[in-house]
Amino acid sequence: MTTQQTDAQIANALQAVAARKDVTDIFFVACGGSYAHMLPNQYIVERESSAIIGNALNAAEFKARAPRRLGKNSIVITCSHSGTTPETVEAAKVARDAGALTISLTHDLGSPLDQASEFTVSYVHSPMTMSPIHSAAVLERLTFGILKIREGNTKADELDKGLAKLPALVDNLILDQRGKMAEFAETHKRETVIYTMASGANFGVAYAFAICILQEMQWIHAAAIHAGEYFHGPFEVTDFDVPFIHLMGLGPSRAMDERALAFTEKYSQRLTVLDAKKLGLATLPAAVSEYLAPLVFSPVLRAYADKLAEAKGHPLTVRRYMWKMEY
Amino acid sequence: MTTQQTDAQIANALQAVAARKDVTDIFFVACGGSYAHMLPNQYIVERESSAIIGNALNAAEFKARAPRRLGKNSIVITCSHSGTTPETVEAAKVARDAGALTISLTHDLGSPLDQASEFTVSYVHSPMTMSPIHSAAVLERLTFGILKIREGNTKADELDKGLAKLPALVDNLILDQRGKMAEFAETHKRETVIYTMASGANFGVAYAFAICILQEMQWIHAAAIHAGEYFHGPFEVTDFDVPFIHLMGLGPSRAMDERALAFTEKYSQRLTVLDAKKLGLATLPAAVSEYLAPLVFSPVLRAYADKLAEAKGHPLTVRRYMWKMEY
Repeated sequence: MTTQQTDAQIANALQAVAARKDVTDIFFVACGGSYAHMLPNQYIVERESSAIIGNALNAAEFKARAPRRLGKNSIVITCSHSGTTPETVEAAKVARDAGALTISLTHDLGSPLDQASEFTVSYVHSPMTMSPIHSAAVLERLTFGILKIREGNTKADELDKGLAKLPALVDNLILDQRGKMAEFAETHKRETVIYTMASGANFGVAYAFAICILQEMQWIHAAAIHAGEYFHGPFEVTDFDVPFIHLMGLGPSRAMDERALAFTEKYSQRLTVLDAKKLGLATLPAAVSEYLAPLVFSPVLRAYADKLAEAKGHPLTVRRYMWKMEY
Repeated sequence: MTTQQTDAQIANALQAVAARKDVTDIFFVACGGSYAHMLPNQYIVERESSAIIGNALNAAEFKARAPRRLGKNSIVITCSHSGTTPETVEAAKVARDAGALTISLTHDLGSPLDQASEFTVSYVHSPMTMSPIHSAAVLERLTFGILKIREGNTKADELDKGLAKLPALVDNLILDQRGKMAEFAETHKRETVIYTMASGANFGVAYAFAICILQEMQWIHAAAIHAGEYFHGPFEVTDFDVPFIHLMGLGPSRAMDERALAFTEKYSQRLTVLDAKKLGLATLPAAVSEYLAPLVFSPVLRAYADKLAEAKGHPLTVRRYMWKMEY
């Protein structure tokens, strides 16, 4: 994939968005890690749009019972890395049959998802870096692009400016944090349970780290806790030896992150904190910095995972079920 | 609370719904267990309505960054058992200030949430029973009531017929399942991690059991896994000794529940399955039976929790942080 290719694919899809008579809904549909990437986009639409709905749904759920609103005024954005995830391919077909404008993201042009969708955007896959043509970035470009075309939202340019800064910012962060990553790996290599915590635009990253890294790739029990939910149940499980990974965001939901951290700091001795304010994100355009935080947390956390895998002797590529059998 | 009181309170609120010029959104706003009760209602609106949006949000998140659509065409339904949950009270104020129609559910008339909201419905609290005036039932009555008034949805009567059958159905189930509950309690009393799994209308119950019962009341690590997400990460954590509680629903998402169960049946020896089809729910009105399943699972699971607490010698009322300190 080149920048030119991806840019042209995004422009094509947005041209079709402009040509639609009405757009009332954007459904963000995928599974697992790709679904997690959708969550900040629902958040963006809720924060930015008064006329358009954003709704992120697991593809199997979407396929089983597509929302009744689905129709010719809907845009359905799907994502599957291989382009072969059956639930996502079928969701794209359901959407297209209903008259929705279908835009897919996949790494593999020519894949079933590409074929099932009207428009496809391909992206670069490199989990420990970030760029404007990584999938998480492409999704936000599409989201802000749609909001620009349909209702004059002016933040797409700010987004592009911010995205241009991310490759160097992320590379430097991963270099800077090498010591912290090694310490995290050593002190967590025998943990049987690790919790992640976030809110707002970052909940999807906390969710992805719990289900794709800890559960899937490291066989460690895990759950993502929404910082606003923490005090209404989950916090009772906190103890001196219970590990939490906190993602501290930049937007209006940061107060929730801070309140949760103030509590775990008192009662747990096993905290790992990634704070967007201390990671240089405050230098990004203010109008979009909260939306860029997940795009920084994601590759940095992947580098943490890489070190953890090394310390455990359990490579991130090992699976016991996935891709190995019928399920 | 009497049936007459609650019925009159619901009728009052629905009268105000009818008097509104336009209704475009229902926001379901609460924290923890009350938030979990909101989730089936978002599901109902997505399944049943083409003109109205349903959106369930944690109250702290709503307070921090109310969706931009919030305004005079919104209905905001909040719930707090004590009526004192600060985030929920503030969310109701934010909503009312924005011109939304505010309807609260609380056990305590006269509480801050009651005072902050235009309309209040009070309910019966008795976690091991179900009736049309329990909070989860009241929420569905409001949801279907709104859909009836605003767009002629005809299922409210079917819902009432189904709800009338639940008290006896749930009482009998809890009696019938006594043996299974005792066995669950004995075989799980030393577990350190328990997963719950569900999809569709039942995901909220799986979430509530994980965060309010297991984490909060039993200090057991837990997470609710969406059955459609299971194969995209979480399933790699499955092993012979990893316990799962499966909720098998009735609606179109049941196929997801069945696929997940077929997998755990092969690779885990620690399964607990509650199947709506085998619990007599198929005798309820077909148009609403899938929406009634969470109202049956919830009290039955509470009876399971009761036995677990007994076997662990850790009463469901014990807390170390909640209500005991500032947080």
